[in-house]
Amino acid sequence: MEQLDTSFLAEAFSSSLPLPAGLEPNLKDGLRSVLDNPGSLIRPRLVFQMGTAYGMDAASAQKLAVALEYFHTASLLFDDLPCMDNAIERRGAMCTHITYGEEGAILTALALINRAYALTWRAIAGCPQAWQEKAMSYVEGCLGVGGLLNGQSFDLHYATLPPTLETTERIARGKTVSLIRLTLALPAMLGGATARELQQLERISEFWGLGYQIVDDLKDVLQSAAQTGKTAARDIELNRPNVAAAIGIGGAIRRLTRLIDLGDRVLWNLLAQRPQLEFLERLRGDLQTELAKVTRDSFVLAEEGRP
Amino acid sequence: MEQLDTSFLAEAFSSSLPLPAGLEPNLKDGLRSVLDNPGSLIRPRLVFQMGTAYGMDAASAQKLAVALEYFHTASLLFDDLPCMDNAIERRGAMCTHITYGEEGAILTALALINRAYALTWRAIAGCPQAWQEKAMSYVEGCLGVGGLLNGQSFDLHYATLPPTLETTERIARGKTVSLIRLTLALPAMLGGATARELQQLERISEFWGLGYQIVDDLKDVLQSAAQTGKTAARDIELNRPNVAAAIGIGGAIRRLTRLIDLGDRVLWNLLAQRPQLEFLERLRGDLQTELAKVTRDSFVLAEEGRP
Repeated sequence: MEQLDTSFLAEAFSSSLPLPAGLEPNLKDGLRSVLDNPGSLIRPRLVFQMGTAYGMDAASAQKLAVALEYFHTASLLFDDLPCMDNAIERRGAMCTHITYGEEGAILTALALINRAYALTWRAIAGCPQAWQEKAMSYVEGCLGVGGLLNGQSFDLHYATLPPTLETTERIARGKTVSLIRLTLALPAMLGGATARELQQLERISEFWGLGYQIVDDLKDVLQSAAQTGKTAARDIELNRPNVAAAIGIGGAIRRLTRLIDLGDRVLWNLLAQRPQLEFLERLRGDLQTELAKVTRDSFVLAEEGRP
Repeated sequence: MEQLDTSFLAEAFSSSLPLPAGLEPNLKDGLRSVLDNPGSLIRPRLVFQMGTAYGMDAASAQKLAVALEYFHTASLLFDDLPCMDNAIERRGAMCTHITYGEEGAILTALALINRAYALTWRAIAGCPQAWQEKAMSYVEGCLGVGGLLNGQSFDLHYATLPPTLETTERIARGKTVSLIRLTLALPAMLGGATARELQQLERISEFWGLGYQIVDDLKDVLQSAAQTGKTAARDIELNRPNVAAAIGIGGAIRRLTRLIDLGDRVLWNLLAQRPQLEFLERLRGDLQTELAKVTRDSFVLAEEGRP
C-alpha cells in the first residue's frame, strides 16, 4: 500500500488562510503560530484520499481537507481554554491562550472557523448540485448542537452524569465520531457515494471513533499507573470521562476488541465493492496496533502486581 | 413611510435554531435564553427589507436576516466574556457567561455561528448562481481577518495604539461597518444590485457605521459627565476607544455632522435610481435625531460650566 506524500497538505494548511497586511499584530502572530505548526495531518490526508478515491477533483478535495483540519484545530483552541480543559501545551508548544491571551486564542479560532466554512462552501460548490444541500446539512449536523458542540458540552458536565460506558460513549459520539464522519463520509458524499456506502462509512466512523477514544482513555490510565503506581489517572483525578475508569481496564480492552471486530465486518463489505478505499486498512491496522500495545501494557502492570 | 411589522422576525429568530431532544441541558438552557430574548431586530428588519426590495424571495431574505442576527448575537456573547469586555448585563438580562459559565457562552455562540453559516448558505443557494461566489466571499471578508475579527482585535489592543480619530475609525470600520455592510450590501448583492449600487451601499454603510459609533461614544462621555460631573467617562477610565476622548466632544459632533452629510449625498443619488429603498431614509433620520440629542446634551453640559 503506497503512502501518500502529504507535504502538499502541510503547505496547504499553512497557506490557505491569507493574512491581510493590515491585520492586528497580536492576532496575526497567533494565527501564524497555529498555521505554521500543523499536527500530524492524518485527518486531511484521509479527507483527500477519500475525496479523490470517489472522484472529487483534487482542488476541491484539498480545500475540504484543509477546511476540516481548520475546524478541528479551532475546536482544540477552544477545548484548551481555562474555562474548558485548562491545558498548557498543545502540539509541542505552549497553548495559544498562554502566549496570545484567551481573547487571542478565541479570535484565532474564529478566524479558522470563518475560513473553514468558506473553504467547505467552495469545495461543495465544486460538486454536483444535487448533493450540495445534503452535504451542507451534514456539515452543520456534525459540527453543531447535534454533534461536536453537544459532545463538548456533555464532556464539560461529566461530573453531573453517571460515570458509565453509555455516558463516555455518548460524549465520544459527539466529540470524536462527528469529526471522523466528516473525515470519511463527507468527501465520499461529495464524490457521489451510494446511500449504502455512506451508511457503511458512518458505521465505520462510529466504531473506530469510539475505539480511538478507548485507546486514549486506556493510555491515560495505564501511563499514570506505570508512572505513579496508582490507578488514580489524570482523567480520574480531574473527574473527566474515561472508559477505563467507567468499566475497568479489562472491560475497556474487551470493548475495544469488539469495536474493531464490528468495524472489520463493515470494512470488508465496503472494500469488496470499493477496492480503491484500501487505504482504510491502514487506519484499521493502526487501531489494531494500539490494541496490542495497551493489552501488553495492561499485562505488564498486572504482573507487577498493580491493578 | 410604512413601518414593517417585524413580529415574524422575532418568531424566526427564536425558532430558526431547532434544539434536538438529546441536547446537553446547560447548553440547551443557554441557547434557549438567547433565542427567547432577541434584541431590537433593527438589523434583520433592514436585511429583509433590503433583500425583498431587490427581489430576493421572502424565504431566502428571512433566512439571511436571521443568519446575520445570529452572527451579530454570537459576536456580542464573545465580546462580553471576561477576557474581552468583561460585561455583566446584556439586553436587560445577565450575560450568558454569568448565568451559564464562560464555556456555556462560548458553546452557545458557536452553535449560533454554525447555524448562521448554514442559513446564509441556504439563502445564497436560493439566488442566481452567478452571484453566489461573490456573496460568499463578501460574508467571509466582512466576518473574518479583514473585517469583524480584525476590528475586535484592534479594539482589545487599543491601549497600545495612538488614541486618535484614525485609530477609533479603524476599529469602527472593522467592528461596526463590516456588520452594516452585511446588512445593507449583501442582500442587495443577492438581489442583483448593480456594481454602482453596491458601491453606494458600501459607502453609506461606512458613513453611517462610523456615525453610529460616534453617537455611542458621545453618549458614553456625555452621560458620564452629566452623572458624575467629570469628563472621565467609562470608556476613558477603561482605556477603551472613544472618538470624543480622541478629538473632544465638539470635534466628534463636527465629524458626525460631516458623516451624515457625506451619507446624504450618496443616499439621494441611490434613491433617485431605486425609490423602493426609501425605508433607508428612516435609518438616516434616526442618525440625525441622535445628532440633535447629543448636540443638545453637550450645550446643557457647557452651560452648566462642565467640559
